[in-house]
Amino acid sequence: MNKFMKMAIDEARDGIRSGDGGPFGCVIVKDGIVIGRGHNQVVRLNDPTCHGEIMAIRSACCTIGTFDLSGCQLYTTAQPCPMCAGAVQWANIEKVYYGCNISDTDAIGFRDQVFFNSRKDISQELCREECLELFREYQSISDKTSY
Amino acid sequence: MNKFMKMAIDEARDGIRSGDGGPFGCVIVKDGIVIGRGHNQVVRLNDPTCHGEIMAIRSACCTIGTFDLSGCQLYTTAQPCPMCAGAVQWANIEKVYYGCNISDTDAIGFRDQVFFNSRKDISQELCREECLELFREYQSISDKTSY
Repeated sequence: MNKFMKMAIDEARDGIRSGDGGPFGCVIVKDGIVIGRGHNQVVRLNDPTCHGEIMAIRSACCTIGTFDLSGCQLYTTAQPCPMCAGAVQWANIEKVYYGCNISDTDAIGFRDQVFFNSRKDISQELCREECLELFREYQSISDKTSY
Repeated sequence: MNKFMKMAIDEARDGIRSGDGGPFGCVIVKDGIVIGRGHNQVVRLNDPTCHGEIMAIRSACCTIGTFDLSGCQLYTTAQPCPMCAGAVQWANIEKVYYGCNISDTDAIGFRDQVFFNSRKDISQELCREECLELFREYQSISDKTSY
């Protein structure tokens, strides 16, 4: 089997045996070298954002000292949820390899499928003018770092 | 103006003046009390996942000691990106109030709009059988915490 996916599975297995969260492990590779790894720690850390992909992205960015993972590949035991798919985009990750698909994840009780299909909008605009003023202040900063 | 949105703006303003990242601040409220706050720290922490909403969710979960923010409202200076919209779902947040919309964010150079519209799929299935074996081990754990 693929050696990077094996590492992702091992990472996930350590996590579920420790009661950290769901069976989701992830490694990030650049130029054939693992630069980041992580597993789901939602339960351990009481943080719904601590999915395997998020943990691995954080780890990889720490390793190479940048928020830009261009040219990196991500191996994960399951197809990324909408949150993690978004994180992959922000990180500029080049390619994602996943093991189980969204239906498999649904079958063991996770809500990814529901979230992908959800059209329920719980959001509402408020104080846009005051926020636009903030945006203008940001634009006026000349030496800022873009991302 | 709404007092919680004012706090979110103040949080964002502190962030941009410190060079932490974009003009995005967020507070989370439960029963009329602020239980979490955060601002974008992508640049400061070299972490593409450190958006205001993610930081605030993390902070709120730490305050009340759970990964479940049911019954909470989130106030954010800009409409959540796909990553943060996903985090809001996982956290079971009840309502989101945002200031600037996706077009406003696009106008100051952020890629949210592109990500919402992107249909480019960079993912590929790999080693599904081995990952299903991991899923079965997870299912066999009887005393696990679901989320």
